[in-house]
Amino acid sequence: MNIEILDTTLRDGSQGERISFSVRDKIAVTEALDELGVSWIEAGNPGSNPKDLEFFRLASSLKLRHAKLCAFGSTRKKGSPPEKDGQLKSLLAAETGAVVIFGKSWDLHVTEVLRAGLDENIAMIAETVAFLRERGRTVLFDAEHFFDGWKANPAYALSTLEAAAGAGAACIVLCDTNGGSFPDCIARGSAAAKKALAHLSSRNPGIRIGIHAHNDAGMACANTVMAVEAGCTHIQGTLVGFGERCGNTALAAVIPSIEIKLKKPCLPPGKLARLSELTWKVAEAANVAVPDNMPYVGHQAFAHKAGMHADGILKVSRSFEHIEPALVGNSRHFPMSEAGGRSAIAERVKKIDPSVTRDHPLTVLLSEKIKELEASGWQFEGADASFELLVRRLIAESPAKPSAGAKAAYKPLFKILAYRVVSEHPTGSSIACSHAWVKVLVDGRDEIAAAEGNGPVHALDGALRRALVHFYAELKQVRLLDYKVRVIDGNEATAAKVRVLIESTDGLRSWSTVGVSDDIIDASRAALVDSIEYKLIIDNETGGTGGQTA
Amino acid sequence: MNIEILDTTLRDGSQGERISFSVRDKIAVTEALDELGVSWIEAGNPGSNPKDLEFFRLASSLKLRHAKLCAFGSTRKKGSPPEKDGQLKSLLAAETGAVVIFGKSWDLHVTEVLRAGLDENIAMIAETVAFLRERGRTVLFDAEHFFDGWKANPAYALSTLEAAAGAGAACIVLCDTNGGSFPDCIARGSAAAKKALAHLSSRNPGIRIGIHAHNDAGMACANTVMAVEAGCTHIQGTLVGFGERCGNTALAAVIPSIEIKLKKPCLPPGKLARLSELTWKVAEAANVAVPDNMPYVGHQAFAHKAGMHADGILKVSRSFEHIEPALVGNSRHFPMSEAGGRSAIAERVKKIDPSVTRDHPLTVLLSEKIKELEASGWQFEGADASFELLVRRLIAESPAKPSAGAKAAYKPLFKILAYRVVSEHPTGSSIACSHAWVKVLVDGRDEIAAAEGNGPVHALDGALRRALVHFYAELKQVRLLDYKVRVIDGNEATAAKVRVLIESTDGLRSWSTVGVSDDIIDASRAALVDSIEYKLIIDNETGGTGGQTA
Repeated sequence: MNIEILDTTLRDGSQGERISFSVRDKIAVTEALDELGVSWIEAGNPGSNPKDLEFFRLASSLKLRHAKLCAFGSTRKKGSPPEKDGQLKSLLAAETGAVVIFGKSWDLHVTEVLRAGLDENIAMIAETVAFLRERGRTVLFDAEHFFDGWKANPAYALSTLEAAAGAGAACIVLCDTNGGSFPDCIARGSAAAKKALAHLSSRNPGIRIGIHAHNDAGMACANTVMAVEAGCTHIQGTLVGFGERCGNTALAAVIPSIEIKLKKPCLPPGKLARLSELTWKVAEAANVAVPDNMPYVGHQAFAHKAGMHADGILKVSRSFEHIEPALVGNSRHFPMSEAGGRSAIAERVKKIDPSVTRDHPLTVLLSEKIKELEASGWQFEGADASFELLVRRLIAESPAKPSAGAKAAYKPLFKILAYRVVSEHPTGSSIACSHAWVKVLVDGRDEIAAAEGNGPVHALDGALRRALVHFYAELKQVRLLDYKVRVIDGNEATAAKVRVLIESTDGLRSWSTVGVSDDIIDASRAALVDSIEYKLIIDNETGGTGGQTA
Repeated sequence: MNIEILDTTLRDGSQGERISFSVRDKIAVTEALDELGVSWIEAGNPGSNPKDLEFFRLASSLKLRHAKLCAFGSTRKKGSPPEKDGQLKSLLAAETGAVVIFGKSWDLHVTEVLRAGLDENIAMIAETVAFLRERGRTVLFDAEHFFDGWKANPAYALSTLEAAAGAGAACIVLCDTNGGSFPDCIARGSAAAKKALAHLSSRNPGIRIGIHAHNDAGMACANTVMAVEAGCTHIQGTLVGFGERCGNTALAAVIPSIEIKLKKPCLPPGKLARLSELTWKVAEAANVAVPDNMPYVGHQAFAHKAGMHADGILKVSRSFEHIEPALVGNSRHFPMSEAGGRSAIAERVKKIDPSVTRDHPLTVLLSEKIKELEASGWQFEGADASFELLVRRLIAESPAKPSAGAKAAYKPLFKILAYRVVSEHPTGSSIACSHAWVKVLVDGRDEIAAAEGNGPVHALDGALRRALVHFYAELKQVRLLDYKVRVIDGNEATAAKVRVLIESTDGLRSWSTVGVSDDIIDASRAALVDSIEYKLIIDNETGGTGGQTA
């Protein structure tokens, strides 16, 4: 049996601190998850959040190829029938084919939090599942706190599962709601649940057992894999891993373990290779960063910084990699750092001059230069275009003659003679506003231009482009995709150094540049200059973008 | 037997991408780890990095109370005796009482990477351990790739352990170097190692078996706990979790699982309660952020955003928390968000007006206001002082009379009438430089002041303080601890909104404030104003800092 994936980025994920989705963001996440091929998307809690109902209305017109949407809610309130429960009415109003219902499996929660009788809780579960089944819904039952409940009162915890399964739930999901369970407990609890439900399989054929883990002890991935080994065939989590407290099982970090290592398919054929790309897409819609060291899909997941590891990888890749990065759409890289060693540097320089080896004088020089720049706060790990410019500039300065296969020598294409950026309040229009002027020199001719902007960097960027577009019309295609600021030494607060990372695009490709300075304006200037210079050099070598814009 | 902790933040941790330590940083990390009470600090690889030797020289004068320093290196090179091995000489030159040696346990690595014979590798291990033992060193042996080797060729992998143990190693550390193993494999492999080494226990009494896990499948914490359950009594990792690729076992995320849940002590008595504080300290020295959702010690580890969870927690804390946060020196909090619900908001407002309840009109008003501000990019989750000012300002605006127990009503203490910030290049001194002037109004009197700074925010901060210190001398005590910038909507790059978070201190306490704007200068101004206003209000209520500075 294939493993079913339920992604709850839009429900449990939105309970992560600092996570907040607009309806448009939710549509983008839904489309990316469908593209990945998950089975279920748990998309909101219409009973507790009226905005979610608006989303379900809009989403009903989406053409989803793989995923089915579910609305999420709870069992009926104690003491009143399902027919009179406003929350269940909202669930039905979402008009999804499936609903996920959570109910209590831990006796402590029944008596102390719900303040209901143990039998009444069983009735609440069974009646709610039956009520939704009668109205044509597929019902997935989340057994909240199952593992804590099973440890405290195993018979009662298992009876809550039987109540839901007996009433026709299609899937019984074992939740480690507080996230503190260990893999051995998860394996034993899952096996106990499987055994307890076995006698219902004739009445409820095809019923699945699922796992919903949280990461409060850092074990969500391991717990999910152990549950699958114990017979669970439905996995809940959020693609990137964010969620209440320490987050949910990060699906992008666990699906490869199950597909590649347990050899159980979770996604449609061919989709695993798109995992990294689509995880990044969902993170972007959620406006969070995928952690760089995230298993499988993080930017550093296959980064080999130790020189010895880089050497080993170049001999036999599996010597220092547990899987082939391409299987999950990620790639190996060798961060440019003192520890990285010259092998890794030479690998990168070869793209510009194929004759360069590990022991080439240029590699040695570059290795020294990188150490020096890193010591003063630069880093090229996320700024490939700035790294390439650094290499080209060093080749141009070097007395050694480049080889026949090398790319054309670098020469500066423009120079900033002066700039001034002003932010002031109040202005004539009484809004805080920034403006800038820049004077550039190109081929002996100078040009001055001004712009205003929402902030000082926006104004500087505008003025610089306006001045340069007189000479380089292709710069009209360029726009900034992302702008990040990192304070390098937080201890000195506003007097600290800042590192600015800029991602640019011309519609056809994108590239990243970096600038470091005590002054955020100056750091931004350095990154903007690299961005523009890189575009001009690459266009020159490749014959431009041919006017294409995507 | 207590569990020994070896922290390798300064060695394996420094192989994490973007991690780079100065010698001063290394001293700070060493002192914090000793304060926490780890048994061993693996502090560098003097053979591959000459700077590490300088650190060991300096560190020998540190008065460490708990931890012993180890230098890290490899077995001797193939084909030459230990006496002639330069790398081993560097290890001895570090003059630490203990050394950690790694050797190959996976036959693939011996034949394909080292390109040595299987027997020669055994000799390299045994001779290196013996050589170091003869020179008075305690030797810890890292069996690199043990688990992969044990799966590929169990007899050979186990024989490498026996070679090290037979030669007198004090600890045999089973490494999952590539980080891709599952907990069940780790448990079985650890048990096999324990069995294989049992016959050596009379010759080598007190020998320990250790575990060194990596997080490439997101299972480092689970694997470490499983190894302890299988008999390992030595744990390696990095406190915050950074390291090669996806990082090492995060010790701060696993020590509480072992101490609290397995009931095996890892740290000296009383130290667990300082875990969060010291993890933050080490992260600060490494200039990385502790991930907010990190198990046990992350800022969000006990953050309850779902309204229902907040309600449950207020009834029975263990209903939604797997441990008591104070055990690890962390604390519970209720993020101020739309999902957080009014219970959480009321909890916070009570600190200012104890009469306020969940259904008080002020709670309702505040809940609406927070939703509105969050929708435009504000967040108060990391800015308690700005949140408190928001509450005070709303109380002041509200027609309802505050209760008898409420703190004094808010009134603005100063107003910025105008400011101008200029960044320019070149300046007279030919360095890019920023300067600012600010005009403030206090009690009907105005004052103007100017300052220059490394960047525009630094200049603005300086000018604002100079103007206000005429009226409020206590502002002299205030300095900024941290300054963070986050671009809220990266898609619109430099025209996007920015959120600035500032942490300030007066030497006695610290507080955080936030500002949001299209313009980084204006966002910084908002956060600076809140920071200063908060200081003045709190001093007024508590009678000041009494001139104390810490």
